[in-house]
Order: sequence, then C-alpha cells, then structure tokens
Amino acid sequence: MKYGVIGVGAIGGYYGSKLAYTGQEVHFLSHSDYAFVKERGMQIDSCNGSFHIDNPSVYAQSKDMPKCDVVLVGLKTTNNHLLATLLPPLLHEDTIVVLIQNGIGVEADVQAMFPHVQLVAGLAFICSAKTEPGRVNHQCYGHINLGNYSCKDERKVQQIADDFIAAGVKAGIKEYEEARWKKAVWNMPFNGMTVALRTQTDLLLKHAATRRLIREQMMEVITTAQHLGVKNIDASFADQMIQTTDEMTPYSPSMRLDYDFHRPMEINYLYSRPLQIAREAGHPMPKLEMLEAQLRFINDQNVILRHDK
Amino acid sequence: MKYGVIGVGAIGGYYGSKLAYTGQEVHFLSHSDYAFVKERGMQIDSCNGSFHIDNPSVYAQSKDMPKCDVVLVGLKTTNNHLLATLLPPLLHEDTIVVLIQNGIGVEADVQAMFPHVQLVAGLAFICSAKTEPGRVNHQCYGHINLGNYSCKDERKVQQIADDFIAAGVKAGIKEYEEARWKKAVWNMPFNGMTVALRTQTDLLLKHAATRRLIREQMMEVITTAQHLGVKNIDASFADQMIQTTDEMTPYSPSMRLDYDFHRPMEINYLYSRPLQIAREAGHPMPKLEMLEAQLRFINDQNVILRHDK
Repeated sequence: MKYGVIGVGAIGGYYGSKLAYTGQEVHFLSHSDYAFVKERGMQIDSCNGSFHIDNPSVYAQSKDMPKCDVVLVGLKTTNNHLLATLLPPLLHEDTIVVLIQNGIGVEADVQAMFPHVQLVAGLAFICSAKTEPGRVNHQCYGHINLGNYSCKDERKVQQIADDFIAAGVKAGIKEYEEARWKKAVWNMPFNGMTVALRTQTDLLLKHAATRRLIREQMMEVITTAQHLGVKNIDASFADQMIQTTDEMTPYSPSMRLDYDFHRPMEINYLYSRPLQIAREAGHPMPKLEMLEAQLRFINDQNVILRHDK
Repeated sequence: MKYGVIGVGAIGGYYGSKLAYTGQEVHFLSHSDYAFVKERGMQIDSCNGSFHIDNPSVYAQSKDMPKCDVVLVGLKTTNNHLLATLLPPLLHEDTIVVLIQNGIGVEADVQAMFPHVQLVAGLAFICSAKTEPGRVNHQCYGHINLGNYSCKDERKVQQIADDFIAAGVKAGIKEYEEARWKKAVWNMPFNGMTVALRTQTDLLLKHAATRRLIREQMMEVITTAQHLGVKNIDASFADQMIQTTDEMTPYSPSMRLDYDFHRPMEINYLYSRPLQIAREAGHPMPKLEMLEAQLRFINDQNVILRHDK
C-alpha cells in the first residue's frame, strides 16, 4: 500500500519513518520543515534503536503528492481545518485516512468535511517529541491502536496494522468507541492537569491529593463511557492506567508541551467535545468541566504571551 | 468594654486600631512586630481617612496582658493551635472571643479547646493588607458581620457591634450559620481560583469560562448550605456576589497573598472542613473538591520553595 503522511512531527514523523525504514512507500508532506527534511532526511532518536531515513519522499505542498491508499494524519487537531485543502490531492476512491490524533469527535468532524472518505482512528501510546526539523526523539512506548470509524473493508484496517507490526510497531485493532474513550481516560486527566499545575505525570501521582483527583477524573470518563455503551471499561482500567503511569519516566503530555511552547492547546477535542457528549447523555463530568474552564483561561493568556514575544 | 487583640495584621491591626482611635481600651498582642509598634505606634492607611495610634497598649507576650471582656482574634487559622497558650491569660469568667477568621469549622475547633469560652464569629468584608510592621493598608470596604456561636447574652454581641459602629466600622449581626456560609460563597471560589490560576478577581470574571466556573462553584456552596438548613441563601446571592466583585478593584484575596509570600494557605478551614461537612450531608461539592486537591499540591510545592530560599 502506498502511504501518505500529513504532519511530520512527533507522531507523523515517527510512524511514517518506521514504515519507510522497512521499505514501505511513504510520501511525507512537510510544510515548514520541507527544506531540512529534503536535505538531511529524517532522524529518529529512539529508545528502541535510532535510525535515519536518507532520502525520504518529501513534499512542500500536497498538490504535488501522489494519490495514496492510506493517509496518516499527524497534525494537531487545532490545525484540522487545513485538511480541507491538504487532503484532497492525496485521495483516490478507496483511500483510508488514519487520524492519529487526540480527543473525541475528530472523526465526526472530518467525516463531515469529507463524507465519502473512509476514516480510521489511530490511538498512539507514545512518548515522543520533535526536537528539531526532521528529528524526532522517541523516548518510550510507541504502540498504536486502530479503531475503524467508516472503513468499508475490515481487512484493509488489518493490513495497516500488519504493516505497522512488520515495521516494528506494536499495533492492534479495537472497537472504535472503546479505543477513543479508553484513550480519553488517560488523556483528559493528565494533559490538562500537567498544564493547570505546571507539573509532570510523576509529581501528580506522588502527591496524595492529586493522585486521588486524577483517579476521580478517570472515573468520570469511565462512568460516562459506560453509560454511552462503551464495552470493556470499568474501574480496574483507571487503576491500570495509574499503574502504567507510575512506571513511566516523568512525562509532559502533548498539551503541556503545547503550553510550554505557547502553542494553542487542543481543548476542543480533548475536553469540550467529550464534555458536551457527556452532558447530552445526562452524565456530566464536573471535575473535567472545571479543568476545561481553567485551560480556556490559561490558553488565552498563554497565546497572548506568544504574540507579545 | 475592655478589648484584647491577638494578631496585629491586616485584620486585627485594622479593627483594633479603629476601636482604639475612638477611645476604647484596646490591648494589642504583637509577637514579631512588638518593638516596631511600641516605638512607632500603629499606622492605618485607609481609603476612609488614614490615622495613627500614637501609644498603643502593646504586649510582646499574652501572659503580661490584662484580662479582657472581648478578645478579637485576627490570626491566620493556620496558627490557631497557638491560641492554646495565647488566649488563657486574657480570659475572665465572661470573656467573649470574636474569631475574625476565614472558613467553616473554626468555632467548633476553638470551642473544643476552650469549652467554656463564649465564641462569636467575625466575618470581615474588607480589602486590607499589612504592608510593614505596625502599618496596615486598608484599600476598601471594611464592614463586619457578627454571628453568635456560643455567647450567652445576645446584648453583649449587640454591644460589640455598637462599639464597631461608633468607631466608624459598619457592623451587623447575622445568624451564625448564615453568616459563615454566605462568606464561604465568596471565599471558596475566589481564594482558591486566584491561586490556582495565579490571577486576580477581575480577570477571573472577565473570561467567560472562569466567570461561569466561579458561579458554578458558588452554586455548589449555596446548594449545600440550603440542604444544611441555612436561611436566606439562594441563586440570587451568587449573582449579587459576582456583581459586587465586578465593581471591586482587581483584588488578590488573602489566600493569594499567602501564596505570593510562601506562607501556608488556609486550606483546612476554607476547603477541607466545609467539603467534609458537605460530603457528610450527602451533597458533595465536586468542583471545590478539585480545587482543594490542586491547592494541596500547590501549597506543598510553595512552602518547599520558601524553605529553599
């Protein structure tokens, strides 16, 4: 299958390079970093063994790219409006678009923009960051779960998973709602709380008060998900997520990095949409609603700071 | 009546000096600022007219003080354990102790320390700060509500109020529970939120997300208070508090000042106690519980910072 990658950062850069390194045909779209990647290739500094892609197929504009069978989207959701112009040149009749993005409601909105495109959710469990143009630091983890949103042929989703596995990426297939909501159980508490308290995952779990609060926030997501009919999710999943995070090195989630670099935070899909869904289902999540309000306040001050610089 | 004042800061310094300035007999206990106050007197820089007390009756140790008819306590609640030694020398058989302090549960704990002392709650609505030893900056407001907790003679509570009024302080008498819980409606959202978001009252109300959150937190307090049987409190009181705060100059509540100066914050009486009462009554306040957890985290990091200096 022919792969396209939109967004060559911590996510698209890592997963696209993994596929390219094992011989898959991968075409990268890199707007701001095009010149760097064209000249120097892609460097992945990885806990599982670093590697370099010497001559990646990289493009500055999507209109110059070939049509692809699978497009991996590694944009921040705050840039999803750009898909309206970036995506069409890459699409043929059967293209599958994998949205490797955070939050709830992403597929619904992209589907509304492209009613006939086949969408798959990509849930990345990875600690990685773009350290300079064309260079990704992959600190740990890296597995990806795929959740079929509107792909007509399940076998194609399986083939994407198989391609990832062949490239050394642990990949699995989960039911779509289960995949998205389970990811939200970790994402909603840790992304916002590391910003609200300017801290990292380890310190949140070391303090008794915030450890309890993180678990309560996880339980808000789990309770809502259960009422929405999501399968295989209960309190034991919160304990499992906390234990996994205890074992991680101190970590700044993507929202904390966005905050640190004065980038707009992904509040809409990480908070507002799931909170709206929860309210509409009659199961509001009060503590995460409060976190959303705090993040809106922080974000607006933070982006002003960037403009002042 | 003979007045004693424990704690000559923003609260005790202001109200004690107002009484002294109109000729009441007032004895001040000032541990750390004794030498300054003894030499230079008390200076009140006030929006209602500044004044100076030339030779206040000030003591470094409570054991040297006379027995008083009324003792005003202006300590931070984080220092209330000191009352065990500070208070006894000032007490005669009929002494009334007015706790001009923040929070819920203060009287219950002091009563447990001194079962026979007559207690009155003092609810100060005042913007003031100690700017240097023996000097208080009174920015605005200043009225005080008294709530009788265990004073046997209501007329004496009225006499204290009359003394305040004669001293140019607006003073009123409210039912105890109503007085404490109404104060909490303002205190619980604004004290913690100005710390959590390192901001002031005006910016919290200018941003739509935090303005809504502040009101929701006020409604948590109001709903709990209603279920506890507190009278004269409903949603209109939240709107009234927000409107009052809209009209105030940008303000840092006492907890924000404690945070700024790396002092321990009054989390126990401002949050933990009312939250516990609410939980026990079957009406938890989830957003204020979250705020408490954030404040515990912030406080522990903040006090460590002070020790590092």
